Amino acid sequence: MTKNRLEAFSDGVLAIVITIMVLEMKAPHEASWESLIHLLPVLGSYIISFLMIAIYWGNHHHLMHTISHVNSGILWANTHLLFWLSLIPFATAWMGENNFAQNTIVVYALLLNLCGLAYFILLTVMKNCNAGNRKLLDLLKHQMRKGMISLIAYTTAIGVAFVSPLIAGIIIVVVGIIWLVPDRNIERSIKEN
Amino acid sequence: MTKNRLEAFSDGVLAIVITIMVLEMKAPHEASWESLIHLLPVLGSYIISFLMIAIYWGNHHHLMHTISHVNSGILWANTHLLFWLSLIPFATAWMGENNFAQNTIVVYALLLNLCGLAYFILLTVMKNCNAGNRKLLDLLKHQMRKGMISLIAYTTAIGVAFVSPLIAGIIIVVVGIIWLVPDRNIERSIKEN
Amino acid sequence: MTKNRLEAFSDGVLAIVITIMVLEMKAPHEASWESLIHLLPVLGSYIISFLMIAIYWGNHHHLMHTISHVNSGILWANTHLLFWLSLIPFATAWMGENNFAQNTIVVYALLLNLCGLAYFILLTVMKNCNAGNRKLLDLLKHQMRKGMISLIAYTTAIGVAFVSPLIAGIIIVVVGIIWLVPDRNIERSIKEN
Amino acid sequence: MTKNRLEAFSDGVLAIVITIMVLEMKAPHEASWESLIHLLPVLGSYIISFLMIAIYWGNHHHLMHTISHVNSGILWANTHLLFWLSLIPFATAWMGENNFAQNTIVVYALLLNLCGLAYFILLTVMKNCNAGNRKLLDLLKHQMRKGMISLIAYTTAIGVAFVSPLIAGIIIVVVGIIWLVPDRNIERSIKEN
Repeated sequence: MTKNRLEAFSDGVLAIVITIMVLEMKAPHEASWESLIHLLPVLGSYIISFLMIAIYWGNHHHLMHTISHVNSGILWANTHLLFWLSLIPFATAWMGENNFAQNTIVVYALLLNLCGLAYFILLTVMKNCNAGNRKLLDLLKHQMRKGMISLIAYTTAIGVAFVSPLIAGIIIVVVGIIWLVPDRNIERSIKEN
Repeated sequence: MTKNRLEAFSDGVLAIVITIMVLEMKAPHEASWESLIHLLPVLGSYIISFLMIAIYWGNHHHLMHTISHVNSGILWANTHLLFWLSLIPFATAWMGENNFAQNTIVVYALLLNLCGLAYFILLTVMKNCNAGNRKLLDLLKHQMRKGMISLIAYTTAIGVAFVSPLIAGIIIVVVGIIWLVPDRNIERSIKEN
Repeated sequence: MTKNRLEAFSDGVLAIVITIMVLEMKAPHEASWESLIHLLPVLGSYIISFLMIAIYWGNHHHLMHTISHVNSGILWANTHLLFWLSLIPFATAWMGENNFAQNTIVVYALLLNLCGLAYFILLTVMKNCNAGNRKLLDLLKHQMRKGMISLIAYTTAIGVAFVSPLIAGIIIVVVGIIWLVPDRNIERSIKEN
Repeated sequence: MTKNRLEAFSDGVLAIVITIMVLEMKAPHEASWESLIHLLPVLGSYIISFLMIAIYWGNHHHLMHTISHVNSGILWANTHLLFWLSLIPFATAWMGENNFAQNTIVVYALLLNLCGLAYFILLTVMKNCNAGNRKLLDLLKHQMRKGMISLIAYTTAIGVAFVSPLIAGIIIVVVGIIWLVPDRNIERSIKEN
């Protein structure tokens, strides 16, 4: 029951985070195509962030699915993750409004890194609290591997952004696609339940 | 359980999408009736979009009701649908603020088409994953027929908008009404459960 | 199950409606007490509307509690109610920003009337669909009596607002308080479940 | 069932309150680091309020976990609490935009006091309605002690803010940390369920 409410609260926050980002795409006061074209960078940053939040939601979903016990540590590690995710609309808007300028990509990659770190902490806390849960351990092994790749890639992207914002952006998107590729093991674990 | 959380997340996103549209109806800084009358196009576009999102919610609801299995494909097809639906507040605001100008109706009809396509993809993915589920197949047959009519009508509306924005708008509203007419088969299927 | 999702969607919309109203209370750009005092009408209209939405949530809650069957009619009557309730943030902001000017009170009372009417339609549809449910009938009798008083009072308030906005405002608040007084029968019905 | 919907509505409101605060952090129209540094007070006030709402969510969660009966009194005491919590985004934005000016800290501490008082009322109403529930009484004893300390500390902070806004701010943050320290008794009570 405790777990259900944790999921409900997380779902609520993620649903709002993913949706309020669209409020940053302010409707132009004229009906010309040019006014729409000016919004393309904002739309682009929206698409990337929508994908990121959706990936976090999907993984969070799989993660919660495997556990049965929730303690205060998990509650707070989860809140900590939601905090960093809640800043994504801000970083998205800053990046979109400034045409993916160098600084904005650095901050965006840094924020994704902090979200990744917070997810990593959540995984670790869950592992300690649910030792002996084989399904969780299987999932953790896969998510931690992907998580490690993401942390390295985002950190690289921060450095790369100072040289070429474009390449940094491509790294961020590619990492997203890695997470999108369905994990056969997760898939199987869903089917078994 | 997995299905419940997919519903909860979708409900959350749709509830937010349908509600934040009202934020575009900015309260005038004066209390005159004229200032309200200037908002009528914004109110009009709000009513149309409220109806569209409500119809999607109703159909999504019926669809989820019929299935018991959820896989990664369904999760992502659903996220893809939510992405296009999340852009409706933007298209609505653009159309309302510019008095249903030609370009704005073209974009709106195009977006509805993309939402319809995403719903179609979701139906197809669900069908492949829940083969042999007769209730789902019955529902699919009816929703796909209506969906096909909608796709043709919206595509026509995009072309028509270049000639007469008014007729294009009427087509969009009429398609909405087709979906509103309760499907006897769906009705029966609800009662049986 | 169908009923649960209807509740979840309604809860989501009502939670958002009640919360986004606070966004209309824009934080002043200076820290003086005067700047806060200028916001008092906005705060006042916020308090009234928070109360109204909370009352609707409470009654909606009691209503759904009594029924077990949901059909398309109920789905659409409920969506119709949510539509009018979703306009409350707009009417609230207009009233607050214009210091409870005559026109704004007329519109606000009119909107409450439309919400009341939509609730009345929902009650009627539910009654037809759940004939023989004694608990629902008991609740309906009480809610319809209060609803009738509200419709008369709000309609009166519309007329009165043209003469004295203040008295119209008092009528609106008093009607709210009538709904706040707990109904012994509802109370008992909750305890029995 | 009644309890579930009360939780769902509260979760919805709290999730929205915690998330819309980020909308006050407006993305700067330039990509310079200076423009980000100007936002630090806004970010600071956001972090404090995120923590406060998260603490309320956690405690609310534990509280609801212990009870099985909900009556109209609890419904309204809960709505009353949500009302004050819903004003936190406003107070947060005012404080952040005005660099933690004296007046804004006074209002913020006052609002936290009112939230605390509303929580206290909710505890009292619950106690009266669930007499004999030992788990609730245990929780109440601990939460009321912490609540009393908070009320005294926030009231002190209001006075202190007139002398030193900084010390008042520190008091507010320290009180937050007191609530963060996991209560062994609550922890145990979660495990037992």
